[in-house]
Amino acid sequence: MAEDTFMPTMTRRQMLRMIGMAGSGALMYQAMTGLGFAKESPYRPPPPLAGSGNGQSVLILGAGLAGLVAAYELGKAGYKVQVLEYNQRLGGRNWTLRGGDLYTELGGHTQRCQFDEGQYFNPGPWRIPYHHHGVLDYCRQLGVALEPFVQLNHNAYFHRRDAFGGKPQRIREVKADFNGGVAELLAKATSTGRLDDLVTKEDREILLEAMREWGGLNRDFSYAAGPVSNDYRGYARDAGGGAHGKPDFSTPVGLHDVLNARLWGNLAASDQYEYQTTMMQPVGGMDAIGKAFGREVGSHVRYGAKVVDIAQDSAGVSVAYEDTKAPGSRHVAKADWCVCTIPLSILSQIPVQVGAAMAAAISAVPYAASNKVGIQFSRRFWEEDDAIYGGVSFSDLPIGMMSYPSHGFGTKKGVLLASYTFFVEALEFTALDPAERIRAALEYGKQIHPQYADTYENGMAVAWHRSPFTLGCFGNWSDQMREKHYADLCAMDGRIVLAGEHASYLPAWQEGAILSSLSAIDQVHRRALAGGRA
Amino acid sequence: MAEDTFMPTMTRRQMLRMIGMAGSGALMYQAMTGLGFAKESPYRPPPPLAGSGNGQSVLILGAGLAGLVAAYELGKAGYKVQVLEYNQRLGGRNWTLRGGDLYTELGGHTQRCQFDEGQYFNPGPWRIPYHHHGVLDYCRQLGVALEPFVQLNHNAYFHRRDAFGGKPQRIREVKADFNGGVAELLAKATSTGRLDDLVTKEDREILLEAMREWGGLNRDFSYAAGPVSNDYRGYARDAGGGAHGKPDFSTPVGLHDVLNARLWGNLAASDQYEYQTTMMQPVGGMDAIGKAFGREVGSHVRYGAKVVDIAQDSAGVSVAYEDTKAPGSRHVAKADWCVCTIPLSILSQIPVQVGAAMAAAISAVPYAASNKVGIQFSRRFWEEDDAIYGGVSFSDLPIGMMSYPSHGFGTKKGVLLASYTFFVEALEFTALDPAERIRAALEYGKQIHPQYADTYENGMAVAWHRSPFTLGCFGNWSDQMREKHYADLCAMDGRIVLAGEHASYLPAWQEGAILSSLSAIDQVHRRALAGGRA
Repeated sequence: MAEDTFMPTMTRRQMLRMIGMAGSGALMYQAMTGLGFAKESPYRPPPPLAGSGNGQSVLILGAGLAGLVAAYELGKAGYKVQVLEYNQRLGGRNWTLRGGDLYTELGGHTQRCQFDEGQYFNPGPWRIPYHHHGVLDYCRQLGVALEPFVQLNHNAYFHRRDAFGGKPQRIREVKADFNGGVAELLAKATSTGRLDDLVTKEDREILLEAMREWGGLNRDFSYAAGPVSNDYRGYARDAGGGAHGKPDFSTPVGLHDVLNARLWGNLAASDQYEYQTTMMQPVGGMDAIGKAFGREVGSHVRYGAKVVDIAQDSAGVSVAYEDTKAPGSRHVAKADWCVCTIPLSILSQIPVQVGAAMAAAISAVPYAASNKVGIQFSRRFWEEDDAIYGGVSFSDLPIGMMSYPSHGFGTKKGVLLASYTFFVEALEFTALDPAERIRAALEYGKQIHPQYADTYENGMAVAWHRSPFTLGCFGNWSDQMREKHYADLCAMDGRIVLAGEHASYLPAWQEGAILSSLSAIDQVHRRALAGGRA
Repeated sequence: MAEDTFMPTMTRRQMLRMIGMAGSGALMYQAMTGLGFAKESPYRPPPPLAGSGNGQSVLILGAGLAGLVAAYELGKAGYKVQVLEYNQRLGGRNWTLRGGDLYTELGGHTQRCQFDEGQYFNPGPWRIPYHHHGVLDYCRQLGVALEPFVQLNHNAYFHRRDAFGGKPQRIREVKADFNGGVAELLAKATSTGRLDDLVTKEDREILLEAMREWGGLNRDFSYAAGPVSNDYRGYARDAGGGAHGKPDFSTPVGLHDVLNARLWGNLAASDQYEYQTTMMQPVGGMDAIGKAFGREVGSHVRYGAKVVDIAQDSAGVSVAYEDTKAPGSRHVAKADWCVCTIPLSILSQIPVQVGAAMAAAISAVPYAASNKVGIQFSRRFWEEDDAIYGGVSFSDLPIGMMSYPSHGFGTKKGVLLASYTFFVEALEFTALDPAERIRAALEYGKQIHPQYADTYENGMAVAWHRSPFTLGCFGNWSDQMREKHYADLCAMDGRIVLAGEHASYLPAWQEGAILSSLSAIDQVHRRALAGGRA
């Protein structure tokens, strides 16, 4: 037997002794480590409200995640809550489109979603990082099932019109060749004495070893065609089985070409703390989170309520709203306190009775434009033909990127995120009406996936700056703006406190909405406990 | 409105013209690109057998994936197939353990799996790369649902007893600091003129830009505490919402310490072509693949058949086997052809009537030892406390690595792969009996996850070199061995041809078994079409 050629180098007794040592080590270690969790997030379960609301009332404006968290936690703490929501559904930007859904954007274009049963598209948030503990903890509490979302797929594409002849490159190859080229260069600099005054002799030896293994270099520190580089960049013909199983080697692209392709920004994207290589998504669509809150607090939500005036005095808050099904109607809701989660893009257009500092903050923050197009295809050509299972391809075409579904691998149809852009690029794209945006995404996308032509079925286009209920994608703070206005935006003004991703250091993320809401209701609660003195 | 500050820089007509151009570009591009798929894999759907087996018979030894593929494809092509399998189940190393399963290893230790309903552990293959087109295509054909398997999780741990005071480090931090330190050093070498003769002036400018963005360097090319490095390595306190949302910055570890931790091998693991950052797994357990084949060809499998002699002459093959439920019994199966997938570790102990070349090959290949331990815990502390959702932690303790489930995020219980080792490390671990191996995995694992102590429920230990039906994990070829014996092992000998991962350039992978089987049955089919002349 082959494995007899290995002899155990440790007796059973030695082994058990080692384990005994490890056991006591573990005890010592417990004191050292604590829970990594606690140090990473400002979020602290359990929820912060101790004591009872004693029947005081809170009016919550907006049933997005910030409003829903406020309603849920304040309700649990004994407050009477009422939520006013402009839309006929809850969730806000936490939103999933499915077959039959209608959406009318600014300008009046109405789209009816024609996706097949089981297909969906998240026009808003679509992926959750592991360090968004607030989102994840509510998913756990409310029974929202999560699954992996593939962010980095080494087999997806980088595409630049002016690089590699405009031909899409597998991320794997670009990444391997970037690492390999960098490692080869640094190894050469090290071994020729150029770094002798920068790195100690001992560290230079280790650095060379590190560059060789990390970069896929040969024994002579060259990065070249062969088994070592191909272990990273892949083969011209993969290893197989039987008589003709021997692989053929692929040839790396040199550092000059890799550098001039200028793809390091895309390479680094998946190493960013916000994204990383895998994230998470709720099974069946991001709106599972909003719906889960809806099961808890949905009965407190008044839909189709367009807030037109927010007033307060020493006795309470008074909010006037129009029933969107009865234009021109005017209703008033009153409460002891108000948590307002209306996006600043809209709030800045409504009379709000707050001090000058908060009023200035409300007016100061610009909103980012963004554009998404989701397209249903009759078959998953990206899996069947291109072996791409989830992940993101990046392009410098006006579509920006495309993302492949991380669920339903191997099934027939699928919905691609066919375009996702921000800022000026998004505004350019939305010079077109929704149907033309879909056509544009198709035409551009064909340059990466020619199969688009034969497999297109239908699509939906959502541009957040053209959405009547947000008028923008997210609050686009600059450092200077934060310095000047952030504290004023987040500090309670009389009986009114603001919440939402715009009142956080995590703009555009659901986590920002949740954490800002917890901070807001903590302020409400302190005031309420202090006897209602505003 | 904030977004009004952006003005579209392109008119609608300009946009439509651009799309028109893109459209014709796409047509040109179609000719250029072809399907990336085809060039990457030696696997070619549809299956290779054209013409009919004309009622000729094939005896297949072993109902692992190689045998099942042979039975499935030969059966479809009109051959009469019979499969002899030693175990009482099909699948071979494609195997999933669930509550109630019994397993007896060499030496007689029997384990009864005590996992809860819905929990499972794959002792054999457990993850599928996107380029294993054979596996993936059969999953598609046979309706095996796949889901993402998280290989790289930036928030999992690297642990070395002699690095960082023995304290586990988040992969994210080590990776960011490795990249940052390398980028800073290379930038310094570049900007101080040390690389002027190695890199052109133009490329040096681009290299500096690349190092800054890829490595998370500041404007002055330093890698230091602050928003830029923390965008990769994470924060001391994350950004949050409301009044106290401002993040605190973490401080990078210097290149000297990162190098001396010697973790680049672990860093590079997920960049390897075989693994990469995300892979796939069948929903509910890897044995879904074997079972799917079983639905097609299970009726042709005779279980509990221990092959003891393989003979052939010009008329056919004759295989003697013992019914394992009737020790000493002797039965004989006959057929025109034989596809033998028995592992060489076992086949080398059975009389086989083949020529000297194949006989020498059968005896030449050593088998690798490997060891896995799966442990069920009462709660998913790795998710709840440590924010680790799937992925692998690496340790230099004798457990080697641990892997967290990529499914069931947020549910209560889970089964960890608590140890996975190969070669000498595996043999050392199996100096212990299965119960002691589980205890050892627990004691060591506590050094990374102290929560082991309070949440352990039960476990299973499988060491492949102690498995009666394989006597090893995989055929452990060296390059020299391949040069001498591989062609002889894979070439048909009379009426007998071999298949299995050992007859491939993809040892230990299911893809190797499948591709070797397709090659083997192609040889059988050619001979059969040629009139049965062996």
